[in-house]
Amino acid sequence: MFFHVRMDVQLPPGLDAAPLLAQEKARAAELQRSGVWPGLWRVVGEYANISIFDVPTNDDLHEILSSLPLFPYMKIHVTPLATHPSKI
Amino acid sequence: MFFHVRMDVQLPPGLDAAPLLAQEKARAAELQRSGVWPGLWRVVGEYANISIFDVPTNDDLHEILSSLPLFPYMKIHVTPLATHPSKI
Amino acid sequence: MFFHVRMDVQLPPGLDAAPLLAQEKARAAELQRSGVWPGLWRVVGEYANISIFDVPTNDDLHEILSSLPLFPYMKIHVTPLATHPSKI
Amino acid sequence: MFFHVRMDVQLPPGLDAAPLLAQEKARAAELQRSGVWPGLWRVVGEYANISIFDVPTNDDLHEILSSLPLFPYMKIHVTPLATHPSKI
Amino acid sequence: MFFHVRMDVQLPPGLDAAPLLAQEKARAAELQRSGVWPGLWRVVGEYANISIFDVPTNDDLHEILSSLPLFPYMKIHVTPLATHPSKI
Amino acid sequence: MFFHVRMDVQLPPGLDAAPLLAQEKARAAELQRSGVWPGLWRVVGEYANISIFDVPTNDDLHEILSSLPLFPYMKIHVTPLATHPSKI
Amino acid sequence: MFFHVRMDVQLPPGLDAAPLLAQEKARAAELQRSGVWPGLWRVVGEYANISIFDVPTNDDLHEILSSLPLFPYMKIHVTPLATHPSKI
Amino acid sequence: MFFHVRMDVQLPPGLDAAPLLAQEKARAAELQRSGVWPGLWRVVGEYANISIFDVPTNDDLHEILSSLPLFPYMKIHVTPLATHPSKI
Amino acid sequence: MFFHVRMDVQLPPGLDAAPLLAQEKARAAELQRSGVWPGLWRVVGEYANISIFDVPTNDDLHEILSSLPLFPYMKIHVTPLATHPSKI
Amino acid sequence: MFFHVRMDVQLPPGLDAAPLLAQEKARAAELQRSGVWPGLWRVVGEYANISIFDVPTNDDLHEILSSLPLFPYMKIHVTPLATHPSKI
Repeated sequence: MFFHVRMDVQLPPGLDAAPLLAQEKARAAELQRSGVWPGLWRVVGEYANISIFDVPTNDDLHEILSSLPLFPYMKIHVTPLATHPSKI
Repeated sequence: MFFHVRMDVQLPPGLDAAPLLAQEKARAAELQRSGVWPGLWRVVGEYANISIFDVPTNDDLHEILSSLPLFPYMKIHVTPLATHPSKI
Repeated sequence: MFFHVRMDVQLPPGLDAAPLLAQEKARAAELQRSGVWPGLWRVVGEYANISIFDVPTNDDLHEILSSLPLFPYMKIHVTPLATHPSKI
Repeated sequence: MFFHVRMDVQLPPGLDAAPLLAQEKARAAELQRSGVWPGLWRVVGEYANISIFDVPTNDDLHEILSSLPLFPYMKIHVTPLATHPSKI
Repeated sequence: MFFHVRMDVQLPPGLDAAPLLAQEKARAAELQRSGVWPGLWRVVGEYANISIFDVPTNDDLHEILSSLPLFPYMKIHVTPLATHPSKI
Repeated sequence: MFFHVRMDVQLPPGLDAAPLLAQEKARAAELQRSGVWPGLWRVVGEYANISIFDVPTNDDLHEILSSLPLFPYMKIHVTPLATHPSKI
Repeated sequence: MFFHVRMDVQLPPGLDAAPLLAQEKARAAELQRSGVWPGLWRVVGEYANISIFDVPTNDDLHEILSSLPLFPYMKIHVTPLATHPSKI
Repeated sequence: MFFHVRMDVQLPPGLDAAPLLAQEKARAAELQRSGVWPGLWRVVGEYANISIFDVPTNDDLHEILSSLPLFPYMKIHVTPLATHPSKI
Repeated sequence: MFFHVRMDVQLPPGLDAAPLLAQEKARAAELQRSGVWPGLWRVVGEYANISIFDVPTNDDLHEILSSLPLFPYMKIHVTPLATHPSKI
Repeated sequence: MFFHVRMDVQLPPGLDAAPLLAQEKARAAELQRSGVWPGLWRVVGEYANISIFDVPTNDDLHEILSSLPLFPYMKIHVTPLATHPSKI
């Protein structure tokens, strides 16, 4: 089941972000390898991404997003997706 | 080069939409087969889609979008995408 | 799996709405009896409702919403919901 | 009398939130058991909830919301609900 | 129980509004005399009003607003009000 | 001459608000007794009020609002009101 | 007493606007000569004006604006102004 | 003196647009040749342009924009530009 | 050449604003005496002004606004104005 | 390939901005000399610029923008541009 997710990152001034960013990168790789995060792009010019997630349930998606290391520093918006009748 | 595109369809009352919709479906299939329209989903509950396009230039994308049979009846918003450093 | 749905109705002037409204009411009753539409309230002062749907997948929700008799005359916005940790 | 309430939590950096969160959870349980808070869901991907409250008056609702332990750290929006004519 | 209501009127072109406006005026007078519509002002420069309603329940308010003769031609927004602690 | 005023309070963290709130309450009582602040309600669920002021001039209203003890911590929006033709 | 007013004109298609525009121009001249409409500018690139009105009361302003020949075809927004302490 | 201008075109249904579009194209060419319209781009996916104008005064810009053949069918927004200190 | 300018002031907590405000007042007086700042009003209820500037070029306006003592603490929006055909 | 970019600068209080601004100016000059930043203007009255970039790909643009010395302190919005059919 697909979801469209946009995440905007806002790191607070003074945060030592390096360890967090390393954890986030590792977690993102793990989630991509497991198949739940098939689409991930940077929005040009912004500290933000647009992603496609493929998960069995809403609860799974919330658990994945809310346990991302950068979750406390992101504004996230989720849009549920359905099969498009013209999709081949 | 990837672009995120959202299209919201607004058919005017009284339009005989059936032929147009058939053309749109055919054109969408053609574009997907050619590889330029790799992502296409319906937004749940709305007459709208969220798409990923993969085209060589901005001009190519505008030509593709503006020649869609439903173009006169769609509100379209394009967001340019870049490679995400955490993409595997 | 729960979803929050807001529907705003905009009937075009000149539409003979009575048959449509009767069909909508019948379909709403049917969906409520089947258990997929557990919450349904009128927004005070507006021709709109706020609803809770309980469906297995995003595709099910889109099929239900897009086949409502009033669908062509509604602006719909869907928000996916997850289990709240403080829910008893 | 039903109300739709959305609460978005924004904890200030440096706050020792644990005791507050425990109090909030306890108070939420108490309010649910008393029947005034029949609906409570997490918005997927956000530190926010969508709730249904069932209270006798506007004053009751404001007293309940404004005495929540997290009230100083939440943006709250209330929408009054009425009986829907298609509700079975 | 008080509610703040803003109503913006948009009469469709070609409507013979005179009878409707007479009915609206009569109904507004009746509701004011009954005590449920204690505040009614015109927004300067706009075909809109800001009102205070005093009704026992949300359902009463929706029934009053949705049976106004101009209801099909108004955009209405309701805000529930509570007793202010500094009100004397 | 009537004005609709909405005030949203945002106290900065760390402010010792108690003396300020006592002054605000006293000033609000004084203004209500003098007749210039005939309407004052709490917006349900928010640290905000909706008010009606009755003052001779715009300058009077600005002087009143800008000398409120909480003025530096409030977002205020003023809407000028006129007599409604249906007001009895 | 000064007010800032922005008026955006939207003439419906098919309207014979010439007589209306002549009346509006005559009325605008009359109001300027009387001193109540001291400021009047075109917003560059838009069919809109930004104006300053000088009237004794809110009711006077509403009567002036709502009796403009183009009133049914304008979106108007009024902002009340006060004396600025740095005005010389 | 430079101005940033965005124009969004909305042709009403039923308009015979071809003659108008030919006139618009001719006028745009003339204005570009005269040097007042140095920048002109299509917004990808939209029936809109982003332009740079170079004119001596605000009045000149308004006269140019409001005499474009498509002016009645465009939503135009103008942003005044100044020399940037880092411009080489 | 006229411009409409709105300035919203937001002084950061802890700033010793008194010297700055005195400088701003002196500079505003100077600019008014020179004729470039013919209109200056306080927005009722807000720490904001609406102004009319009369300057030869966009660059002049930017230089004036960006050298105001309060410039770092203001959100400024500029709208270019043209001669209105109904202005007498 | 052209892109429209708007950058709004927000320097945090307490930042020693001078070195950063010098680096930004140097980098902007370098990018302009290389031909990728052909358009650069100040938005009148704001600490913001409107720019035109000419780059081969989305990735190039993101790399350029995200490596600007002021990037952490800017809100950036990118709009992809295509050739306009009326461009001469």
